[in-house]
Amino acid sequence: MALVVQKYGGSSVATAERIKRVAERIVATRKAGNEVVVVVSAMGDTTDELLDLAHQVSPLPAGRELDMLLTAGERISMALLAMAIHNLGYEARSYTGSQAGVLTTSTHGKARIIDVTPGRLRGALDEGAIAIVAGFQGVSQDTKDITTLGRGGSDTTAVALAAALHADVCEIYTDVDGVFTADPRIVPNARHIKQITYEEMLELAACGAKVLMLRCVEYARRFGMPIHVRSSYSNNPGTMVTGSMEDVPVEQAMITGVAHDRSEAKITIVGVPDEPGAAARVFETVASAESNIDMIVQNVSTEATGRTDISFTLPKTDGPAAMAALGKVQDKIGFKGLLYDDHIGKVSLIGAGMRSHPGVAATFFASMADAGINIEMISTSEIRVSVVCRDTDLDAAVRAVHDAFELGGDEEAVVYAGTGR
Amino acid sequence: MALVVQKYGGSSVATAERIKRVAERIVATRKAGNEVVVVVSAMGDTTDELLDLAHQVSPLPAGRELDMLLTAGERISMALLAMAIHNLGYEARSYTGSQAGVLTTSTHGKARIIDVTPGRLRGALDEGAIAIVAGFQGVSQDTKDITTLGRGGSDTTAVALAAALHADVCEIYTDVDGVFTADPRIVPNARHIKQITYEEMLELAACGAKVLMLRCVEYARRFGMPIHVRSSYSNNPGTMVTGSMEDVPVEQAMITGVAHDRSEAKITIVGVPDEPGAAARVFETVASAESNIDMIVQNVSTEATGRTDISFTLPKTDGPAAMAALGKVQDKIGFKGLLYDDHIGKVSLIGAGMRSHPGVAATFFASMADAGINIEMISTSEIRVSVVCRDTDLDAAVRAVHDAFELGGDEEAVVYAGTGR
Repeated sequence: MALVVQKYGGSSVATAERIKRVAERIVATRKAGNEVVVVVSAMGDTTDELLDLAHQVSPLPAGRELDMLLTAGERISMALLAMAIHNLGYEARSYTGSQAGVLTTSTHGKARIIDVTPGRLRGALDEGAIAIVAGFQGVSQDTKDITTLGRGGSDTTAVALAAALHADVCEIYTDVDGVFTADPRIVPNARHIKQITYEEMLELAACGAKVLMLRCVEYARRFGMPIHVRSSYSNNPGTMVTGSMEDVPVEQAMITGVAHDRSEAKITIVGVPDEPGAAARVFETVASAESNIDMIVQNVSTEATGRTDISFTLPKTDGPAAMAALGKVQDKIGFKGLLYDDHIGKVSLIGAGMRSHPGVAATFFASMADAGINIEMISTSEIRVSVVCRDTDLDAAVRAVHDAFELGGDEEAVVYAGTGR
Repeated sequence: MALVVQKYGGSSVATAERIKRVAERIVATRKAGNEVVVVVSAMGDTTDELLDLAHQVSPLPAGRELDMLLTAGERISMALLAMAIHNLGYEARSYTGSQAGVLTTSTHGKARIIDVTPGRLRGALDEGAIAIVAGFQGVSQDTKDITTLGRGGSDTTAVALAAALHADVCEIYTDVDGVFTADPRIVPNARHIKQITYEEMLELAACGAKVLMLRCVEYARRFGMPIHVRSSYSNNPGTMVTGSMEDVPVEQAMITGVAHDRSEAKITIVGVPDEPGAAARVFETVASAESNIDMIVQNVSTEATGRTDISFTLPKTDGPAAMAALGKVQDKIGFKGLLYDDHIGKVSLIGAGMRSHPGVAATFFASMADAGINIEMISTSEIRVSVVCRDTDLDAAVRAVHDAFELGGDEEAVVYAGTGR
C-alpha cells in the first residue's frame, strides 16, 4: 500500500461538477489500495473575488486579516470535496492548514513552512479515511495567527505534507500533461518531458515556467520527494520530477527545454560614479525595499565621465517600491537618473547536459540574430542561458531557440483551459 | 471603562458599504472609552449560497463537512470588518470561534456551548485592540472538529462571550429597534418595549418572536447578562432584556406582547387505543426521531369505540421524520391513521402580570370569536396563552388579540429590511 499525496489547483475544483470529477479520481486512487491525502486550492476565481471585497472595505488591507479572509477559499473547496467523496461511499475529512499541522513563519501573505506535524492526518489515514487539506495556508508558530504561503503555496503544502508523511509520491494535478520543452501555447510542437531532475525543474521554474513554483521544487529536492506533474483532465502519464543532475547519464539530451517570462521589468541607473561601493549602495537600497533582483548588468565606464550605467531586472510587482527607494537615495549615491522599462521579456534555455557541451550559448545567440531579435541582457548559470529582449519579440525568440536546438516533437501538445494557484 | 459585546447579523454586514457603516459604529463605541468585542454573522446570503453548493455535490452532506463549509461565511465577514476598522485608524483582530475559545459539544449543525476560554480575546483587549469574533461557530471539546451552533447561534456566541468576559452589556444589533408588542409588519401600531424580563423574552422567543433566539435568552438569564436589542440602522434606544419576573412591580402592564409562529405543523394520530401507555409509546417514537414537540391535545375517548385521537404540533422541518417514525409503529401501537397538517398558525399572548389577573384567557378567546377565527388547540403557562388556528387566519388573530388588550401605541413602528441568522 502506497501513500499518495495529490494536489488539485483552483481550476480543477472551479465548479460543483469539477469537484465531483476530482472526487472520482481520488476515490479511484483509494480503491487501488493507496492511502490518499489531497491538497486543494480555492475554487476558480474565489481568491480574486475575496481580494476584490477586501479592497472595497480598505485600500490597504492588513496582512493578518487578508490571510484570514483568503483562507476561507480553501475552506469552502475542501469541505465540498470531502462531501463529494462521501457521496461516492468513502470516508473523507477536511483539515485546515492549522489542523493539518502546517507551521509557518509569521510573515503574512508569504509565510514559509517551518515544520509539519501531521498527527491528525496520520490518525485519519489510520482509520481508513481520505484526508483533504487546505493548500496555501498554515498557522504561525509564534503568534498562532493564520498565514498564507503566497503564490504556488498549495504546491508547496502538498510537497511538505508528502515529505512529513513519508509519502511515496506527490502528484500535482494541473491543466497540462506535465512539463514541456516550451509553452505549448507558443510552440505548438513542444515535446512532453517524461522525467526531469530537480535542478533542471528549479531553473525552469525560476525562468518563468509556471507549471511548478520554485519554492515547491526546492522543498521536494531538499526532501528527495518525487513530484508527478499530471493533468486533471486526462489519464496520460505526466512528468516525474526526481533525481539529481549527478545521476543524469551523459548520453542524455543536452537540452531540457525553453522557458520564458513576461513578469519582469528592467531598471537602469544612469551615471553611477565609478568608485568602490557604489554598486553595493545601489543594491542595498533595492534589497531594503524587499525587491527580488534577477539579472544585473553593469556597463564599462568611460574614462572621460568616470561614470557607468547599471541595469537590473526584477518582478514588475516589486518595480514601484524599488524605484521609490532608489529615488530617495539619488543624491546620496550621486547617480544621474533612473529609467524604468516594463516592456521586456526573458527567454531561457535549460539543460543539465549543457555543462559538458560548449557552444550552446553561441547557437542560442545565433538563433536570436537569425530571427532579427536584439539581445539586451545576458545571464548564464552552469545549466542555463537567459537573455532579455523586447516583450513583443518574446514569442518569436522562444520559437527560434526551440527550433535551433531541435526540441520539437511530431505531435501537437494538448492544452487545457485555466490554471490554479 | 465598560466592556461591551456587540453582535451584528448577516443583513448588517451584507455588503462592503454596510460593513463600513458597522465599522464606524464600532469605532464610535471604542472612542467613547469602551473595550469592544464584536460578534459577526456571515454576509447576507452567503450561508444559503454555501448550502446550495453543498447540495450540488451531495444530496445529504455530512455534518462535519457542512460545518467546515458554513464557517467560511463568518471568516469572510469578520476579516472584512477588521479591515474596515483598521481603515478608520483603530486596531482590530478577527478570531474564529475556535481561536476565541468557544468550546462546544460535537453535535454538528446544532452544537451547544460547553465552555468559553477567552484568553486570546482578553489579550487583544489588553493591548487596546477591538476583537472581532465569528458567530455561530465553535470547536468540539472532544474531537477538535469545527462545529456550528444552529439557528440564532451568533446571538448565543455573543451572550456566551459577554458572560465569559464579564462584559457590562451584550448589544444585539438587528433590523428593528428592539422588541415590540407584536410584529410591526402585521400590526402597524405595535408599541416598542423598553424593558422586558428574561422569562417574558423566553416565552416570546419560544412562541415565534424572531428578534432573539430561545437559546441565547436562556444563556443570558443563566448568567444574568443584560441584552440590549437595537437596530443597526438607527441610534434609537432598543429593548433591554434584564431582570427577573419576581422584580416586576405589580402595577406594571399586565400583558407584554403578542407573538406568532408559522413554522409549525400539526400531526394527528387517529384512533389510538385508550389504554395506559399508548400516549407514552407515541411520544417515545416521536422523540426517537429527534423531533421537538410543542403543544399536545388528546380528545376524550367515546365509550363506544374505546379509542381517542392525539394531536401535537412540531417544527415543520421535523415533520417528515416524525411521520415516517410513527408510520413504522402503526401496527405495534394499533392506531388507525395519521394526519399531517402544515397549514396551521400559532398566536400567543405573553405577560408576567398575567399570573395575578384572572380573565386573560377569556378575553383572548372572545377576541378570536369576534374576529370569526376558529381555535383548534389551546396551551397555557403561568405567563402565556397560546392557540392554534388556520395559517390564513393568523394575521387577523394577531391583530384581534393585540387590539383586545389595547397594546397599540400612537405611532407606526419603523421596519427595516432583511434579517440575519
